[in-house]
Amino acid sequence: MIIYLNGSFIPLEEAKLSPFDRGFLFADGVYEAIRTYNGKLFRLEDHLSRLKRSLLSIEIEYNEVDQLDSIIYKLIEKNHFASENIFIYLQITRGSSLTRTHHFPDSTISTIFITTNEIKDNDDKRNKGVKVITTEDLRWKRCDIKSISLLPAVLAKQKAHENSAEEAILVRDGVITEGTHTNFFAVRNNTVYTAPEGNFILSGITRKVVIELCNKLDIKVKEEFIKTDKLKSFDEYFITSTTKEITPVAQINVWKPGEKVPGEITQRLLDAFIELTSKLK
Amino acid sequence: MIIYLNGSFIPLEEAKLSPFDRGFLFADGVYEAIRTYNGKLFRLEDHLSRLKRSLLSIEIEYNEVDQLDSIIYKLIEKNHFASENIFIYLQITRGSSLTRTHHFPDSTISTIFITTNEIKDNDDKRNKGVKVITTEDLRWKRCDIKSISLLPAVLAKQKAHENSAEEAILVRDGVITEGTHTNFFAVRNNTVYTAPEGNFILSGITRKVVIELCNKLDIKVKEEFIKTDKLKSFDEYFITSTTKEITPVAQINVWKPGEKVPGEITQRLLDAFIELTSKLK
Repeated sequence: MIIYLNGSFIPLEEAKLSPFDRGFLFADGVYEAIRTYNGKLFRLEDHLSRLKRSLLSIEIEYNEVDQLDSIIYKLIEKNHFASENIFIYLQITRGSSLTRTHHFPDSTISTIFITTNEIKDNDDKRNKGVKVITTEDLRWKRCDIKSISLLPAVLAKQKAHENSAEEAILVRDGVITEGTHTNFFAVRNNTVYTAPEGNFILSGITRKVVIELCNKLDIKVKEEFIKTDKLKSFDEYFITSTTKEITPVAQINVWKPGEKVPGEITQRLLDAFIELTSKLK
Repeated sequence: MIIYLNGSFIPLEEAKLSPFDRGFLFADGVYEAIRTYNGKLFRLEDHLSRLKRSLLSIEIEYNEVDQLDSIIYKLIEKNHFASENIFIYLQITRGSSLTRTHHFPDSTISTIFITTNEIKDNDDKRNKGVKVITTEDLRWKRCDIKSISLLPAVLAKQKAHENSAEEAILVRDGVITEGTHTNFFAVRNNTVYTAPEGNFILSGITRKVVIELCNKLDIKVKEEFIKTDKLKSFDEYFITSTTKEITPVAQINVWKPGEKVPGEITQRLLDAFIELTSKLK
């Protein structure tokens, strides 16, 4: 596998980093996860504008965001994948400094790291739905920044994994925020509910696409927090992310919603999503 | 400079890490900061027992904690420092995995990284005190784990740095928790106040030493949260850490406490601390 690191396309075995990189010492960096459909980057502009926002939020200088599309396409080409559905992981850190200070060092050159991988199809989970668990949202108060300071998400996702669940849905002060790497949706009376943008969720690109599709399909959207004690009052549930796309939820903790999975609204959104992405060329 | 990385003592220029290390991708690791006085590691047992606790909290397997003292002394020796006061930075991550999953990968070999540096003396700051600022505590709810998921601390410390302050004192829900890498103390009526142990502060080793010294010197200690709206009602303030030792606070935001710096109690603790550490051989 060829990866991209600081300007070079190199075999992954040769990819080496300084342990003085602030990404390693301080989680001082941000990332993006992007994918292609039929060889074409999906919602690239949205991902890059979120990346710019993340970089700005933590004041990392990286001026080549607008050249990333050609770097990514070149990296995909070099890997000679059989599939046209590729996952791209992209991380930028503040770079390396021999002096360990919490505050930003005087001059560092940011580190950029990109990997690509073939995506397995999502059909089985899309058809049957997945189990999720709920757990306390222990994360910091700037979840809107897509930072690599991910240990809280790691621990919550591990808890899900140990409970044979696909995702952990996070609860802060009695309301649902989002999953560890997905947004969470619930449906009732032809209305789709999801947590509002702000400091407590990451503004997901697939979340945005779902809201657009709802508008197109005349499905109402309410961006408001779902209280955990009202969670069972909905008819359908699903999670979204770049790789999970729209994935129905078939079980929350030990509870299985009685309704058919995917539910009616979820299925309509799924169909529209598949139509949208299959048209990409 | 020679550093220690995964079993090898090597020049820092040769120290290379895989970008697939989960320390780099997920902040999935913990660290310790230790120091020597007169060539002898100070409170090593406390640091190593905290390290074990951190490792256990996030389920990283690393079975050689009890061999670390000899590795550290060997590393110091190899660096031929002129000083006998050395700062040791030690980081352990879950190790490297080519598959990026939030949950723990099946089998990884933990990464260990140690650096050593000479410590500049602290006399000037100890005599004159330092400025601190207060800012919102945005961190996660497991600050008791000494994790490398440090971006929130980086951003707060940067704010301090931009305000010519030595440290940012963090405020959560109207009370003071601690600094970005120090514990915070205030003194009134021969009583020293500091936030209690629990999920919202890191249990500092110097904090523990200060409490022991208070007991020895018949200074009362109250481990309770200080409300920000009562902050000005104290007479003396100081911060503690392995490198900052006991550092008096001469200014909080724009406000300068009228009292002499260091205050009387702070000075007694300072004297006792210097006596304690100078006896180490």
